Amino acid sequence: MGDVGTLNQLGPEYKSLKINPSRFNDALQYSCQWGATDDGGMNRLSGNDDDKAVRDWFIAETAKHGCSHKVDTMGNIFAIRPGQNNDLPPIGLGSHLDTQPTGGRYDGILGVHCALEVLRVIDEAGITTYAPLAIINWTNEEGARFPPAMLGSGVWAGQYTLDHGHSRESVEGVSMAQELERIGYMGKVPCSSEQNPLSAHFEVHIEQGTILEKEIQPVGVVKGAQSVRWFRLVVSGRAQHTGGTPMEKRCDAILAAAKVVILVHQEATDRGIRATVSTIKSDPQSMNTIAGKAELSLDLRAPSDADMDDLEASLRQSFEKIQAETRTKFEMLPVWNSPAEFFDESMVECVRQSAKELGSSVEMMSFIGHDSVYTSKIVPTAMIFARCRDGISHSPDEYTSPEEYL
Amino acid sequence: MGDVGTLNQLGPEYKSLKINPSRFNDALQYSCQWGATDDGGMNRLSGNDDDKAVRDWFIAETAKHGCSHKVDTMGNIFAIRPGQNNDLPPIGLGSHLDTQPTGGRYDGILGVHCALEVLRVIDEAGITTYAPLAIINWTNEEGARFPPAMLGSGVWAGQYTLDHGHSRESVEGVSMAQELERIGYMGKVPCSSEQNPLSAHFEVHIEQGTILEKEIQPVGVVKGAQSVRWFRLVVSGRAQHTGGTPMEKRCDAILAAAKVVILVHQEATDRGIRATVSTIKSDPQSMNTIAGKAELSLDLRAPSDADMDDLEASLRQSFEKIQAETRTKFEMLPVWNSPAEFFDESMVECVRQSAKELGSSVEMMSFIGHDSVYTSKIVPTAMIFARCRDGISHSPDEYTSPEEYL
Repeated sequence: MGDVGTLNQLGPEYKSLKINPSRFNDALQYSCQWGATDDGGMNRLSGNDDDKAVRDWFIAETAKHGCSHKVDTMGNIFAIRPGQNNDLPPIGLGSHLDTQPTGGRYDGILGVHCALEVLRVIDEAGITTYAPLAIINWTNEEGARFPPAMLGSGVWAGQYTLDHGHSRESVEGVSMAQELERIGYMGKVPCSSEQNPLSAHFEVHIEQGTILEKEIQPVGVVKGAQSVRWFRLVVSGRAQHTGGTPMEKRCDAILAAAKVVILVHQEATDRGIRATVSTIKSDPQSMNTIAGKAELSLDLRAPSDADMDDLEASLRQSFEKIQAETRTKFEMLPVWNSPAEFFDESMVECVRQSAKELGSSVEMMSFIGHDSVYTSKIVPTAMIFARCRDGISHSPDEYTSPEEYL
Repeated sequence: MGDVGTLNQLGPEYKSLKINPSRFNDALQYSCQWGATDDGGMNRLSGNDDDKAVRDWFIAETAKHGCSHKVDTMGNIFAIRPGQNNDLPPIGLGSHLDTQPTGGRYDGILGVHCALEVLRVIDEAGITTYAPLAIINWTNEEGARFPPAMLGSGVWAGQYTLDHGHSRESVEGVSMAQELERIGYMGKVPCSSEQNPLSAHFEVHIEQGTILEKEIQPVGVVKGAQSVRWFRLVVSGRAQHTGGTPMEKRCDAILAAAKVVILVHQEATDRGIRATVSTIKSDPQSMNTIAGKAELSLDLRAPSDADMDDLEASLRQSFEKIQAETRTKFEMLPVWNSPAEFFDESMVECVRQSAKELGSSVEMMSFIGHDSVYTSKIVPTAMIFARCRDGISHSPDEYTSPEEYL
């Protein structure tokens, strides 16, 4: 890993640098012509024709500022501007240009454009950085067309094999590899942090939350990503006649499930975290039979593993009460456990100092996975959150005003 | 329709008649050898081998007491004991011998055995009744194997065509007609209240409720069957990222659905009626997406149509609040509306007087459909409810003690 201590000791030539907000916003809006939807949102799924078009534009745009390009075997694009020491791995500034099918113009896109604007400013000032810079577009971060999410950075960071990455299929039955070939972005560079290393990774991303809005701050320092646990909850009651069974004698799996939904929502609201019953399905699907069974998916997120342990313990305790009240039995099956990921402290400190210059001192954990969560497993990583309206994302209503960047 | 006024003017020879409870219970338990399950319950689905066996036994048993037999084209069996006026249509005493797959020994079975015991007592006393008697086993009342329920009496009463009755299919893909043919119970007598009429219909059935238990009464006078309405409720929210969406910004279709479940349960409990959310299913089925849609089935039951109107209005009003609270939209689609059915008053009065002799004066509406609900559309009908333990039915735990008949 590169020595990132030097990041805090930038020379005087960096002092007066400022981005150009209108240039920045113009470029962002211009690039959203590919995949734009009538409602002002975006539908630029990984590997589709619009994804190809914006990738072509990204390469042309970065080439204007002295970048050469590496496209790896997952289609990740590294636009590299040489530095003083080109034997050092580049410092990565990246995010993603793909969107959800009903996505907005900022999730991912903002981060790539921030990196582009940094590139323009440095190039304009005629600065040659200490290490090379890599402006990165990670492939299929959304996982909307090719689940799971963060696939390109996941393969790069060794979280998935290349074969796994290539073989992911869309609902139409085409594979990630097929689509990368089709749009001409199946590169030759190995998708590997070992064979194509970085020395660090920075990412700007919309907050997808309302903390910055509440604190009236433009940016936030991201310390890491929250702990996430997924469970499948199976509720067993007794299938009985809806007409023939007195209310007080029922073992109604749907009633028990409903109490779980209300409880999970209340716990999350009280704790200021996010927890969701994201799917529910009852059995039998018969109009006049009380449900004997219900299956639920639980998606729990907490800032630390300790907070998560506490949440899980509290839920399990309340589940005992619900089972007793409704005469049902619960089975709670773990599906996924992603411990909290804490970013490199010297990188976070670097972001913290820059944020202070903007008068911002809000620090937070990301509620969701990002490419940076995977890069952080390999290289020192930091994220900067930008305020977004109402915390809305994955929606055409997603919005971050250009004024955030003045 | 027959002149049932005479039913209340029974001759003195009827005065001293009493059933034999142990003979009655012995016969009931004996006949439950066909379809008995290890847990003490029953699994005697319409048209299966056990159904054939118990039908054969029913014919042999009624033949011992001077009955001839009519089997109609839906397999309904009419065991007819001649009276003084054999040009009059018989007075029917019937129920059903089929059960749910996880059924008990009383639902339906009790009514057929009550009719059998009445036959034995009258035969033993050497009485020739004014009109003939018909002890009836209706086919496929449960509808467990061949939905819908009350199929045999439904075709007889003209609620369904014979073709509809014959073509009902089991999950294994065999039809009602095929199974009737196979077990030898596809009769020649037209299944029709016009071509094979009755002058009245009496049915004893377990209460499938707890009113008699609470009132410490062995029997109840049934005035009719409750109003039933079924709805499909479609909840539309917004599918968003579980991690990326603050709790207070969500339009969570599952949360809204859970509030509906709790509300419906509370309303039913408060009003002393029965109302159920019997099925639920969310969309998309994705662990990390807040449900954008949920579909629920509502099964509402109320003693009168006015009570039902009031319940529906109250629910609709609360649904407005839930929609506002959860930022979702509801669509409430009617699926079935079965108005309350009130039994013939002179028939109810006849049951009322007999119940009085047992010291019982509890009157109630049935929460569920029975063969009598369909016969009531054609001939004067009455039902007598017997107390059952904990109100449990459609379960091996179903129980009515022999002492109820002493």
